[in-house]
Amino acid sequence: MTIMASLEQYLKSRRALVDATIEANLPPPDTLPAVIHEAMHYAVLGGGKRIRPILAIAAAEACGADPKPLMKPFAALELIHTYSLVHDDLPALDNDDLRRGRKTTHVVFGEAMGILTGDALLTEAFSWLAAPIEGVDASRQLRAIAEVARAVDSTGMIGGQVADIAPTSNDLEQLQFIHRNKTGKLLTASVVLGGLLAGANNGQLAALRGYGEATGLAFQIVDDLLDIEESAATLGKTAGKDVEQGKLTYPALLGAEAARAEAARLLAAAVSNADIISGPVNYLAAIARYICERRS
Amino acid sequence: MTIMASLEQYLKSRRALVDATIEANLPPPDTLPAVIHEAMHYAVLGGGKRIRPILAIAAAEACGADPKPLMKPFAALELIHTYSLVHDDLPALDNDDLRRGRKTTHVVFGEAMGILTGDALLTEAFSWLAAPIEGVDASRQLRAIAEVARAVDSTGMIGGQVADIAPTSNDLEQLQFIHRNKTGKLLTASVVLGGLLAGANNGQLAALRGYGEATGLAFQIVDDLLDIEESAATLGKTAGKDVEQGKLTYPALLGAEAARAEAARLLAAAVSNADIISGPVNYLAAIARYICERRS
Repeated sequence: MTIMASLEQYLKSRRALVDATIEANLPPPDTLPAVIHEAMHYAVLGGGKRIRPILAIAAAEACGADPKPLMKPFAALELIHTYSLVHDDLPALDNDDLRRGRKTTHVVFGEAMGILTGDALLTEAFSWLAAPIEGVDASRQLRAIAEVARAVDSTGMIGGQVADIAPTSNDLEQLQFIHRNKTGKLLTASVVLGGLLAGANNGQLAALRGYGEATGLAFQIVDDLLDIEESAATLGKTAGKDVEQGKLTYPALLGAEAARAEAARLLAAAVSNADIISGPVNYLAAIARYICERRS
Repeated sequence: MTIMASLEQYLKSRRALVDATIEANLPPPDTLPAVIHEAMHYAVLGGGKRIRPILAIAAAEACGADPKPLMKPFAALELIHTYSLVHDDLPALDNDDLRRGRKTTHVVFGEAMGILTGDALLTEAFSWLAAPIEGVDASRQLRAIAEVARAVDSTGMIGGQVADIAPTSNDLEQLQFIHRNKTGKLLTASVVLGGLLAGANNGQLAALRGYGEATGLAFQIVDDLLDIEESAATLGKTAGKDVEQGKLTYPALLGAEAARAEAARLLAAAVSNADIISGPVNYLAAIARYICERRS
């Protein structure tokens, strides 16, 4: 019987593992041409909760594997997430100057370098995903690469971003399409990647997939609710910036009460899937609760 | 003893194989969100010689393999090449409105969609590279994916593009860095991919690598020479547009005569490497000659 650390200790230690992996494997910032490598370091090492690699780690541990030999492909998830942020922030897309309290990559390094830095992070991610891993079956690893690629392709994360900037309708179906694709699929692929490389069986993989889908959607609904609550608390008005910008949100479409009920239902689904993976070190349910019950 | 078709027939039939593979495997243009899938089709199916997939096919055939079961990863090379063109044409980079006589992707679909279409093509390429192939060892396929990823990462194709738009010096070393990385490494990875998936031995792989490096560099020198000759013939002046734009070129750095001699030396190196692969269907030498002796 393993004695489990607190969730806070767990997140902190696993995040340190992710950061160490990224720093050890990114080309050093003085690699030629230096400017692109400086920009890659700037973009990736500027903070962030590392939630996708941590989900992969938690899934692998829940399935009984040691995550250490799997860290390179797990950290690749953070490169993909960062590339998507760097490109989303570009002037032609969301045109954001700040991210996590720092200037965005294109503001510091120029727009051309912003585009190329995103490209380089995405490419680097697939190098890391394809690096040989002692003790992991190569055909499983191929399946894992295909799983991640599909999650972030034009029918996945990129498709969600396209629908977000150019929605073709303004109903719940469109909102769900955006969220399932823009954030849900990569979160799901993260836990499935963890399971695949840990040697999970088909039942465990199906539970991980159910967990990822429920957690991903709940995460978005909570985001939308926080936007309203934050604004009400800090700005003394009821409409948050999403509402101001006319963005599709769950509270706007369903009402806050029904949105809260939907988030609770999804959290319960995530937890019941997490409990199917019966490993002794299983933080999946705790992480889902952490994601869904966070306050601003 | 196989009777070989003419090079022209060979290039035409293999190009048809590449085009059919791309059309069969790209998500149909009406897949949601439709706009990104229309843009992907527009970008990829607008012509092009398909030289990278054809090099992979020729390498596989030279090593004795049937290329048909390997077409999906080979066609992925064209997706990667196209993504690099779509991003290079963007306003923040080369700002080109025309490509192969048609409007560039971002001109037709907008700048945001130009960025996302390039992203989607690169991602799709890795899906195709990771798709299971009957009869190919999975660990060889992983090695092939890593080979391609490294060729186009921040120390490869993207690094070459960075050095091209932001050169740190204007000497032969810088020019060679740009060409070796911007075009040479993906051409080399194309023949190595063909060899790896065909089950080539280490001697064959080394010859393919030597062939790719020599052909890639010769290709660039011939490009530079054509730019001068074309301008002299059609515009009645001696300076081509590269020279006008102050771009680093081989003729400018070495003189036209020495550049011609260097191209001939590289072609000879490519041919001697091609001859090491002793398969009965070996178009590698003929393709290197075709690339190096082309007239505008």
